[in-house]
Amino acid sequence: MHRRSGLLIAVGVCAGLATTPAAQSGSTSWDTRFRELPQPSNIRAAMERLSARPHHVGSPYDKDNAEWLLSRFKEWGWDAEIETFSILFPTPTERVLELLEPTRFTAKLEEPVDPADPTSNQKGEQLPTFNAYSIDGDVAGPLVYVNYGRPEDYQVLERYGISVRGAIVLARYGESWRGIKPKVAAEHGAVGCLIFSDPKDDGFGAGDVFPNGPMRPRDGAQRGSVMDMPVYPGDPLTPGIGATADAKRLAIKDAQTLTKIPVLPISYADAQPLLASLSGVVVPADWRGGLPITYRFGPGAGRAHLKVAFSWDQKPLYDVVARLRGATFPDQWVVRGNHHDAWVNGAEDPVSGLSAMLEEARGLGELRRQGWAPKRTIIYCAWDGEEPSLLGSTEWAEAHGAELQQHAVAYLNSDGNGRGFLEVEGSHTLEHFINDVARDITDPETHLTVWQRQQARAIDGAKAEDKEKVRARSDWRIGALGSGSDYTPFLQHLGIPSLNIGYGGEDRNGIYHSIYDDFYFFTHFLDTDFAYGRTLAQTGGTAVIRLADADILPFRFSNLADTVRTYDEELQLLVKKKRDEIRERNREIADGVFAAIDDPRRPRAAPRAETIPPALEFTPMSRAIETLTRRAVALDEARAAAAKKQAPPAALAAIDVKISQSEQQLLDAAGLVHREWYKHLLYAPGFYTGYGVKTIPGVREAIEQGQYDSVPMEMARVAKALEREAAWLDGITKMLNALK
Amino acid sequence: MHRRSGLLIAVGVCAGLATTPAAQSGSTSWDTRFRELPQPSNIRAAMERLSARPHHVGSPYDKDNAEWLLSRFKEWGWDAEIETFSILFPTPTERVLELLEPTRFTAKLEEPVDPADPTSNQKGEQLPTFNAYSIDGDVAGPLVYVNYGRPEDYQVLERYGISVRGAIVLARYGESWRGIKPKVAAEHGAVGCLIFSDPKDDGFGAGDVFPNGPMRPRDGAQRGSVMDMPVYPGDPLTPGIGATADAKRLAIKDAQTLTKIPVLPISYADAQPLLASLSGVVVPADWRGGLPITYRFGPGAGRAHLKVAFSWDQKPLYDVVARLRGATFPDQWVVRGNHHDAWVNGAEDPVSGLSAMLEEARGLGELRRQGWAPKRTIIYCAWDGEEPSLLGSTEWAEAHGAELQQHAVAYLNSDGNGRGFLEVEGSHTLEHFINDVARDITDPETHLTVWQRQQARAIDGAKAEDKEKVRARSDWRIGALGSGSDYTPFLQHLGIPSLNIGYGGEDRNGIYHSIYDDFYFFTHFLDTDFAYGRTLAQTGGTAVIRLADADILPFRFSNLADTVRTYDEELQLLVKKKRDEIRERNREIADGVFAAIDDPRRPRAAPRAETIPPALEFTPMSRAIETLTRRAVALDEARAAAAKKQAPPAALAAIDVKISQSEQQLLDAAGLVHREWYKHLLYAPGFYTGYGVKTIPGVREAIEQGQYDSVPMEMARVAKALEREAAWLDGITKMLNALK
Repeated sequence: MHRRSGLLIAVGVCAGLATTPAAQSGSTSWDTRFRELPQPSNIRAAMERLSARPHHVGSPYDKDNAEWLLSRFKEWGWDAEIETFSILFPTPTERVLELLEPTRFTAKLEEPVDPADPTSNQKGEQLPTFNAYSIDGDVAGPLVYVNYGRPEDYQVLERYGISVRGAIVLARYGESWRGIKPKVAAEHGAVGCLIFSDPKDDGFGAGDVFPNGPMRPRDGAQRGSVMDMPVYPGDPLTPGIGATADAKRLAIKDAQTLTKIPVLPISYADAQPLLASLSGVVVPADWRGGLPITYRFGPGAGRAHLKVAFSWDQKPLYDVVARLRGATFPDQWVVRGNHHDAWVNGAEDPVSGLSAMLEEARGLGELRRQGWAPKRTIIYCAWDGEEPSLLGSTEWAEAHGAELQQHAVAYLNSDGNGRGFLEVEGSHTLEHFINDVARDITDPETHLTVWQRQQARAIDGAKAEDKEKVRARSDWRIGALGSGSDYTPFLQHLGIPSLNIGYGGEDRNGIYHSIYDDFYFFTHFLDTDFAYGRTLAQTGGTAVIRLADADILPFRFSNLADTVRTYDEELQLLVKKKRDEIRERNREIADGVFAAIDDPRRPRAAPRAETIPPALEFTPMSRAIETLTRRAVALDEARAAAAKKQAPPAALAAIDVKISQSEQQLLDAAGLVHREWYKHLLYAPGFYTGYGVKTIPGVREAIEQGQYDSVPMEMARVAKALEREAAWLDGITKMLNALK
Repeated sequence: MHRRSGLLIAVGVCAGLATTPAAQSGSTSWDTRFRELPQPSNIRAAMERLSARPHHVGSPYDKDNAEWLLSRFKEWGWDAEIETFSILFPTPTERVLELLEPTRFTAKLEEPVDPADPTSNQKGEQLPTFNAYSIDGDVAGPLVYVNYGRPEDYQVLERYGISVRGAIVLARYGESWRGIKPKVAAEHGAVGCLIFSDPKDDGFGAGDVFPNGPMRPRDGAQRGSVMDMPVYPGDPLTPGIGATADAKRLAIKDAQTLTKIPVLPISYADAQPLLASLSGVVVPADWRGGLPITYRFGPGAGRAHLKVAFSWDQKPLYDVVARLRGATFPDQWVVRGNHHDAWVNGAEDPVSGLSAMLEEARGLGELRRQGWAPKRTIIYCAWDGEEPSLLGSTEWAEAHGAELQQHAVAYLNSDGNGRGFLEVEGSHTLEHFINDVARDITDPETHLTVWQRQQARAIDGAKAEDKEKVRARSDWRIGALGSGSDYTPFLQHLGIPSLNIGYGGEDRNGIYHSIYDDFYFFTHFLDTDFAYGRTLAQTGGTAVIRLADADILPFRFSNLADTVRTYDEELQLLVKKKRDEIRERNREIADGVFAAIDDPRRPRAAPRAETIPPALEFTPMSRAIETLTRRAVALDEARAAAAKKQAPPAALAAIDVKISQSEQQLLDAAGLVHREWYKHLLYAPGFYTGYGVKTIPGVREAIEQGQYDSVPMEMARVAKALEREAAWLDGITKMLNALK
């Protein structure tokens, strides 16, 4: 280990880059001291307690955990409370899946107890395998295999002349978020949707299965939400408002985000007889999975019957919210969160992240006892109901939207945590800030800084032509946020600057959302010594302390401008690529190329001719980006100059409010097309990818979906938002320059 | 069908390109008439007869087939004979494979009789599953999985710290020619080599298995030669000379082409327990196959025992050679060949090609009865012993080398045939010629010309940036010849202009070299109505008639020059790419990037630093190509002008000899490094790919293997050969221009 580290410093993978950030006066020593505090043993103990029993929304142990968390915060000197909401959370009353023909087979739909695993036997408290927010349904029909169930998979089926109309589709987990699969299936006329875990993806094909290893055993199935979250997350009955006891609710039949067809997740043991019953053409190589059968499209002689019914109950949510009041800027809030609910025992998801965050809270309480007084108010949140659809965070953010837009300077999210690299996505105004944090955190395996380790990974992973750019940039790039955890309401609905942080990339696991994600599993196969739990606590705590104590909030806007410029380039390239591809393909269709190469034994229709994208005018957006870039650079310079001045707190407070509200300039009250809940014009989960982000989503999705007519309007909205942002920054610059 | 064809002609996938070749005076009508003659029913009958029993080298039915073929040629008016050689062909006397630890398992090594398949039960005549020219051996050791067993696979193992020294390797079939696998394994210190058929590649993963479909059943294994053919093919004891009864032979111990370690092919049923016994790190995704297990590198607790012993006998070879004497240029020979021996019944390999060729021979005989007198002598050959290592063709070519270099104007090879596209590789001087033939052959499925269909495929398959180049070129490009069939001695040892032709690309099959490759199989799953058998006969016959009857041989040298220019570009790009890659990788190694991203639970060493390729001077070769291009264009123009003259046969004969000997200018008597048998400086099978061609092999392999010091000398040899060729062409141009 040490040799590696010495080598690196000597020859300099990061020579000259490992500088510490410009110190916030007075804070360096506190965050340095803080980093000594997190203890793996505490994180381990918290995980053992929190994952001891199933603790999904509405379960006894979910409430018990919330109360335990509340006590801990209080014990450590936080001003903590539980805030409750009431939300719709259906749980299954009936689940039947059977093959009717050509042979009879009834799916087990059951994850067996494993004798090695002491908590897998808590059958009475476990939710069965199901997909939340599937509608009730009782359907029968032929089966068709649709690969990952993405729109492009249906284009392949169409060329083979295979329709899913009236069929139950078999989609495998992966590539798109699970909720996309029934959505796209229903758009194509399917009557039911089965989502199976293929052993190639997270079962024996990828490694030893539980309990011999971390991969999914044959009867394991992935629970999970299939709500149409790209439309809006949270309680289906209270879009846009907090699901308080007295909130006005939609009727269930009017809830837009429930699935259109019944859905059920199944194991690969249950999937195999269904897949084996399909006949017809053998699927292409990239559709083949790891079961020892020949994968075919279907349909075939097989007919299946799927029945699911749910108890459509309101359930209580318990959000634990804990505050340390700021001494100087009490009305400025640094918000940190991780969810506490799980599908079952949830040691990895979410307790690995939650227990690290809890250790941060303990450390911050300890610092406070030692005399530290954070300048800003710090709010730590343990969310309930993330798994069904970001319920706890969304309802809280909706209930407190106006306050948050006024007071929150940033939201820092975590979720599951593991061994490996610091993985960050979020607001690019915070990109430089989190890079600086990473420069001060030590990786427990290599003893490099986590910044160096991630930089090495970025160099290794870059295409040959991009490696120099990666090396030359002083900050590594952070990803943009799509969805899949609790940052979504903060960033995409309210415009609170947000980051999602966590470690990972070394261990794969296949027990996600199963009964086996428990303490036994985590301590045998993942971050077994909680070294990365400690590292996450150090990272989160350092970030929180610096955000809380900075006189001028450590945002860097040139990173945002630089990032938006890359999106503009990407979009221009996307249009060019689409234009070239469609023009070429249309020509090949017209020339009969597809007919000429067709195999009459496995006939495929030619793809459909598409409209060639018209010339799209990017100038307004590009020009706005130029303006933004100039203003951003000016602001960053003014901020650096101002840091040397001794300005009074009141003057700084006004500037900081403006800085933290800059992200809101990128919102549009009208929201995105067909999903007005999403207000952010730079970041959104993809309408057809689910978790996967679409940057500048209005423009990008219009281009991707061939709705070229709406591009100019979408582009104009973005240009206007960027100009608004530029003017906003200019205002901040003037305030900074006016400081004495 | 008709609609497609109409559409194509109307909108013009090939508009303006479907012209017929410049007619050879008098020949058009004969080749047009010829194309009416081939009958699917005859091809079917020939296949049924030839594949009725196992007919490997030395078997009774191998000889019986040769005699039957001889009778057919004679019946159709050919002057035919059987020419015999005596070669070393070991057959197994003992085959044992067992897992000794951790559990006991004895491999079956047996392909079971299938009741649906009437010839699969001919056990008494079948060769068992084995790899020919493995040495005898009795070894035991741990097992290591080496993926496809290519040099790059061992680089992956090295990074994981896994050695095969003293181990028995498990390599899967595919990607490289099978003979490469034991060769590379032995270079790395392995003591034995098992080659298994992975179901992902040609078993149930790829489609229904026999007898329900054409893919390999669980106990099916691939026989095949593992001789070191990239050194020299043919009888191991008589390199470079015909293996006549009195030939001087090496002692077996001195034969360079036998394997260094014992080798055995196994089925996936036999492979599964062995692979399942491996422990250690899970292999990367591209190493994983289709068995329902977790693939690991090994070694593990498992130890295996492999014993193979052979009867090292001399066996007779029966080459059937049939002649139609030329009327005008009897000393100029058009040679056509396909092998007749098989590993077992061999309906697909080789009888599908052989029976089509036989139908050509019948048709040519019929034309002759109708009054046709070919100008040149036509020689049809049915080779014995292709499967073990091109024995029949190599020994015949070696025995008749001097005559062939004097008289042969071209060699046209076929092997197995199937549905789909005309696939051609060979001498680029014949590229334009075979394009012209393809323009006159109708594809039975689309009723387009086979030229149009292949052109459509080339457009479809081209990278976006290459599509226009494909459309603009009046001839589609043909591939270069590596090895794997009987053209090798003609082209690469003797410099006879050669083509390999066959149809394929629509059906995959997994019964290759098994007992199930028989008449039942072929007529159920492949070219079931022999429509493509007929098409191959039409193609081969048309080509032979045109080559036989052309006054001036229809070579086009600008196609050669253009092709060599692309090789020069490729090589320059290869050096640049290697330089960039190695420089970058060395930098990453020095910077500690690999150490920084390493996972201590699955440690990998950094790759080894390599020498950056020095600046290599391509000018001499590039300049020679420029000269060649000018001379080639001048010759093509002179030829076109000469075609309008009425020159006396004697003058033409002298020119034709020079044209056909032009390929010999590209030979170097010293041969390639470490394998002097291979004399051609443009085309050779790769030393580490086996069948896969390496163009300009001396230069390319020196670069690939990092032997940069030898590049200038290799480049000089090529430049000299190209200059020799250019001068030779200049001589022909002068002769053409001198014609009255």
